[in-house]
Amino acid sequence: MIDNPFYSHEHHGDYELISIGRFELEEGGVIPDCRLAVTTWGELNAAKDNAILITTWYSGTHQIWRDAYVGPDHALNPEKYFIVAINQIGNGLSTSPHNADGANAEIAMSRFPKVRIGDDVRAQEQLLREHFGIEQLELVVGGSMGAQQTWEWLVRFPDRMRLGAPIAGTAQNTPHDWLYTETLNEQIWSDPGWNGGEYASNAEVVDGLTRQAHLWGVMGFSTEFWKQEVWRALEFESKEAFLAGFLEPYFTVMDPNALLTCAWKWQHGDVARHTGGDLAAALGRIQAKVFVMPIDEDMFFPPRDCAAEQALTPNSELRVVEDVLGHLGLFAVAPTYMPQIDRHLGELLAT
Amino acid sequence: MIDNPFYSHEHHGDYELISIGRFELEEGGVIPDCRLAVTTWGELNAAKDNAILITTWYSGTHQIWRDAYVGPDHALNPEKYFIVAINQIGNGLSTSPHNADGANAEIAMSRFPKVRIGDDVRAQEQLLREHFGIEQLELVVGGSMGAQQTWEWLVRFPDRMRLGAPIAGTAQNTPHDWLYTETLNEQIWSDPGWNGGEYASNAEVVDGLTRQAHLWGVMGFSTEFWKQEVWRALEFESKEAFLAGFLEPYFTVMDPNALLTCAWKWQHGDVARHTGGDLAAALGRIQAKVFVMPIDEDMFFPPRDCAAEQALTPNSELRVVEDVLGHLGLFAVAPTYMPQIDRHLGELLAT
Repeated sequence: MIDNPFYSHEHHGDYELISIGRFELEEGGVIPDCRLAVTTWGELNAAKDNAILITTWYSGTHQIWRDAYVGPDHALNPEKYFIVAINQIGNGLSTSPHNADGANAEIAMSRFPKVRIGDDVRAQEQLLREHFGIEQLELVVGGSMGAQQTWEWLVRFPDRMRLGAPIAGTAQNTPHDWLYTETLNEQIWSDPGWNGGEYASNAEVVDGLTRQAHLWGVMGFSTEFWKQEVWRALEFESKEAFLAGFLEPYFTVMDPNALLTCAWKWQHGDVARHTGGDLAAALGRIQAKVFVMPIDEDMFFPPRDCAAEQALTPNSELRVVEDVLGHLGLFAVAPTYMPQIDRHLGELLAT
Repeated sequence: MIDNPFYSHEHHGDYELISIGRFELEEGGVIPDCRLAVTTWGELNAAKDNAILITTWYSGTHQIWRDAYVGPDHALNPEKYFIVAINQIGNGLSTSPHNADGANAEIAMSRFPKVRIGDDVRAQEQLLREHFGIEQLELVVGGSMGAQQTWEWLVRFPDRMRLGAPIAGTAQNTPHDWLYTETLNEQIWSDPGWNGGEYASNAEVVDGLTRQAHLWGVMGFSTEFWKQEVWRALEFESKEAFLAGFLEPYFTVMDPNALLTCAWKWQHGDVARHTGGDLAAALGRIQAKVFVMPIDEDMFFPPRDCAAEQALTPNSELRVVEDVLGHLGLFAVAPTYMPQIDRHLGELLAT
């Protein structure tokens, strides 16, 4: 158990840790007491049919959704919908290597089991049903790894939601994406401070986390982001200042084992596991209306890959989001970003 | 002095080490005895006006040009032209940190000075003039860092060549490219075996070089290269086998300080140094006919960046090369690659 102050209410506002009890994982491991960090906005109506599920991305939590995506001026409007954000297993807030205490002590740190996207989705389904009595969702929406979870929901539980919106993420992880994620991992593994996952503090892995932040600088944004010096709009004076003042502090406060847990999940995301490897058959199962929403300048979930999956999805549309920030457009810092998201999600919800 | 067998005639065929003597560098350092590894094909005619200069790329030497680009069936035809390939300073064959012996002992290993693209071009000009009596070139051509040298030639010596062909490289390095190169460097720097540049053998830096190879896997090819499993055409059975059997052995035999010397040069390539930072003014100087030849799937010298420079180059055309291999299409392994190169260079030479 490491007391990492980043994973706290101070940095993540209100959220509740909800246990779904002992949880068996697809890869064979077990989480003795699986606790999911959950945030909600709005009210569940009597028919329990106004619920929206938000899933979270690598390095992310519910907080970015609170800061940028959810509100009365957005499509994700808590005055109309009961919105539930469930943090993925291993993200640092939900049960994770560094916070595995009590009944979970046996899976702390390097002993944390392998978790799959499918485990997250099963855990979310169980929590929604048992804790909130929700069996039918209006919408499942998430970005990046959250999109992977959204796709998994759509294929695994095709009759359990009316709408789906995977943003900047694929149903079946690509080999290029796998390789990129592996280089992120290697930055941590190569830091002697990581010590096979048995460090005493994330500060001991600051070199590896800093190098990982630099890789995000290369792949997370676009070539045009850097060429146009978009970081000036974020009030930095140089690209070096932006790295040192934005990307490095963003990643170095995080838990390395949490990032590794999520990275493995990210690499292995694949809805075709439900259909013996047949991606078309898996996507063909989908019953919900789906807007597939890649970001045009994304370097590792590029529109080309997302469009190929959209073409296999029966009742879907390709809605490309334009953002020079590339994948990390998801941070919603460009003033032109949220209006696009709201327009697409608004049209989807109005379907 | 490290005896690295990769930098030998066994691996690089015929080449000659030609000294241009003491060479002062733009950043203030000095190479006491600057030796350039030179390979030639064909005969210099009496008028000395049939010479083509080939420049080399990061991690590359003249050898790939011999293997793929030069021959009687190619535009770079030694039956018509006197073709000179000059290996860049610090590439492992020309004077480099690991081979700095004799008069160069004072600049061995970590004491090797900073070298700029402009130094390479001045050294090449001096060698061509003093050793071969060549003052006028028919064509300067190179890929990647070789394109950076080509651009530098075109701007620095605008009346010294009739034609120029920068392939997959820019005249002014972009900030994104700078960041990518820095992550390549960090793989070496973070290896304890590198030891501040004072290792006893490149084998001591095998972990860092291997991680660098993996980054090339992410940025050197394209997302489609991996998705289409193009490595099958190279007779590998999996992407892991391709990494282990192609990219890793390619980089791990190289000298880490040589790669770092070239990387610094790559990062700082900028023809606008001649015009107080004004790129348009620098490119406006160019007198040669130029074909700007990006590769369509290149992730770090993307066509967009090359097209912007081409638009500023007076007598130029944009000739985009299609290759799903991306930047490392330069290796000329796709059967569709060399026909495009030969067509473009052939048309340029026929101008």
